[in-house]
Amino acid sequence: MATRITVYEVGPRDGLQNEARVVPTDGKLALVAALADAGLTRIEATSFVSPAWIPALADSAELVARLPARPGVQYVALVPNGKGLARLLEARGKASPASPVDAAVFLSASETHNKKNVNKTIEETFRAFDEVIGPALAAGLRVRGYVSTAWGCPFEGAVDPRRVAGIAERLLGLGCWQVSLGDTIGVGTPNQTREIVGLLAPRARPGSIALHLHETRGTALANVLAGLEAGITTFDASVGGLGGCPYAPGASGNLATEDLVYMLHGMGYETGVDYGKLVTAGALAQELVGRRLPGRALQAELAGRERAARAAEAKA
Amino acid sequence: MATRITVYEVGPRDGLQNEARVVPTDGKLALVAALADAGLTRIEATSFVSPAWIPALADSAELVARLPARPGVQYVALVPNGKGLARLLEARGKASPASPVDAAVFLSASETHNKKNVNKTIEETFRAFDEVIGPALAAGLRVRGYVSTAWGCPFEGAVDPRRVAGIAERLLGLGCWQVSLGDTIGVGTPNQTREIVGLLAPRARPGSIALHLHETRGTALANVLAGLEAGITTFDASVGGLGGCPYAPGASGNLATEDLVYMLHGMGYETGVDYGKLVTAGALAQELVGRRLPGRALQAELAGRERAARAAEAKA
Repeated sequence: MATRITVYEVGPRDGLQNEARVVPTDGKLALVAALADAGLTRIEATSFVSPAWIPALADSAELVARLPARPGVQYVALVPNGKGLARLLEARGKASPASPVDAAVFLSASETHNKKNVNKTIEETFRAFDEVIGPALAAGLRVRGYVSTAWGCPFEGAVDPRRVAGIAERLLGLGCWQVSLGDTIGVGTPNQTREIVGLLAPRARPGSIALHLHETRGTALANVLAGLEAGITTFDASVGGLGGCPYAPGASGNLATEDLVYMLHGMGYETGVDYGKLVTAGALAQELVGRRLPGRALQAELAGRERAARAAEAKA
Repeated sequence: MATRITVYEVGPRDGLQNEARVVPTDGKLALVAALADAGLTRIEATSFVSPAWIPALADSAELVARLPARPGVQYVALVPNGKGLARLLEARGKASPASPVDAAVFLSASETHNKKNVNKTIEETFRAFDEVIGPALAAGLRVRGYVSTAWGCPFEGAVDPRRVAGIAERLLGLGCWQVSLGDTIGVGTPNQTREIVGLLAPRARPGSIALHLHETRGTALANVLAGLEAGITTFDASVGGLGGCPYAPGASGNLATEDLVYMLHGMGYETGVDYGKLVTAGALAQELVGRRLPGRALQAELAGRERAARAAEAKA
């Protein structure tokens, strides 16, 4: 039997939060529905950070209340503090119980990045998690933890893998069901991935560590391969490679879901994702943000569809 | 001691041959010089196919005669037949003996692709090699062989790895010092790479098999990682990801040299390449072709340089 790999889709949240064009709520809901219909069962839909910080996701309460009911799909919303959790819980009460919305918390492995991102030290961030993780668990939500800059920090450079492992274990100890390690600036290479995973995986529950890799220097799928070989079974990705792109127009951030699924299927892994429908969702994402997305496979497949359509037209 | 990996640069030939904008000979020579100065020691500079087929490389004789003398650099030119070899030998006689130009021959692993590419069956192509490989070796050249569509054919789909291995072994038997296996349409995934290399590597001289991977679906560096693990020590790449891009504007073909070198250095391999100078060569390539190149690391590093320049300006 083929090994099952879980693809954790972050496009609607991590992808759309930095887009120049704010996608209307109906567009976001259509994208979420397309992703769920393509077979993705973990979809990070929005964020309850302050709308002043991320105006693109200011509609998170409405979005959560209107998320399409898809039995078997787990939606997730980012929650930075108690206030965010209160807003999530309120919106969640209006949503279909068929597809509950869970919570995710985040911090960085490097002090400087954490300070710039959430204006707190790492210790202060952990203290703030007290008003989120425990109450969320008590309310019946599952909580995911993110550790950013796990492969390197834009301000501090190299990050000690033992530091990353320590933070991840602490999150698991607080009750996170899964911790996702993020290569926020896309500097990671496979030996480093092996080292980080090698420190953590033997001490963590199977399935409790996920990798969130970036394509900034083209190394995302090589790092996925290193992760697969080390026993990782969950990888984050973003439809079309949407988002995670702080640098320049055209520069790449998040690993594209299509690229990840293409490689996994080519290696005989099962993901439950319908690749053709995923490409269609990618085309929708591209239309919604009004720019060409950087995902490699998406562009190759859309070009293939266009050629086929032209050939069919020429025949007709 | 770190393992040495050879990066075989194909940009000036495989990259420029399909560009809409024909780069003038002086521009090509400047690019070749920049690549050599970045520490690349194998540079495929041009092709002696008929200028009617590839007008962009119609200046191959002049280019070879004027290639910059760089002791230790091995230049290579593609040669399809006896006529092409005669033209290469004549041009080579005018070039500096410090940096000799070797030859490369090519065919496809699938009949349909080979027929469409060179208008011959595979057997006819091997017969045509008689007028190239033997005479080239007799003239003191080294000959490299290319096997295209080794991971899959756009017309026939899957290609039997044993067929690929058989063709590669035949080329080595004819006297090719190295055979480069090409994932022409970028469909390869790591298990397949392991299978192909696993069939060949145990029977071939160390260093006699190279991989020429495409980024079409983002899997190039994952396939490089699989190749490294299977003992491959030479990888083809193209500066900035230039070329190998038959589909659509913005779609990706060749693995970018910067991405490859970034990952290899990050894994502790030695390449002899100066990464900063390579990025500078990539910027030059981009300028010469007048379009943004798809290489991920190139774009990330150029964006970083721009930010640093703006910060320096703001301070001044």
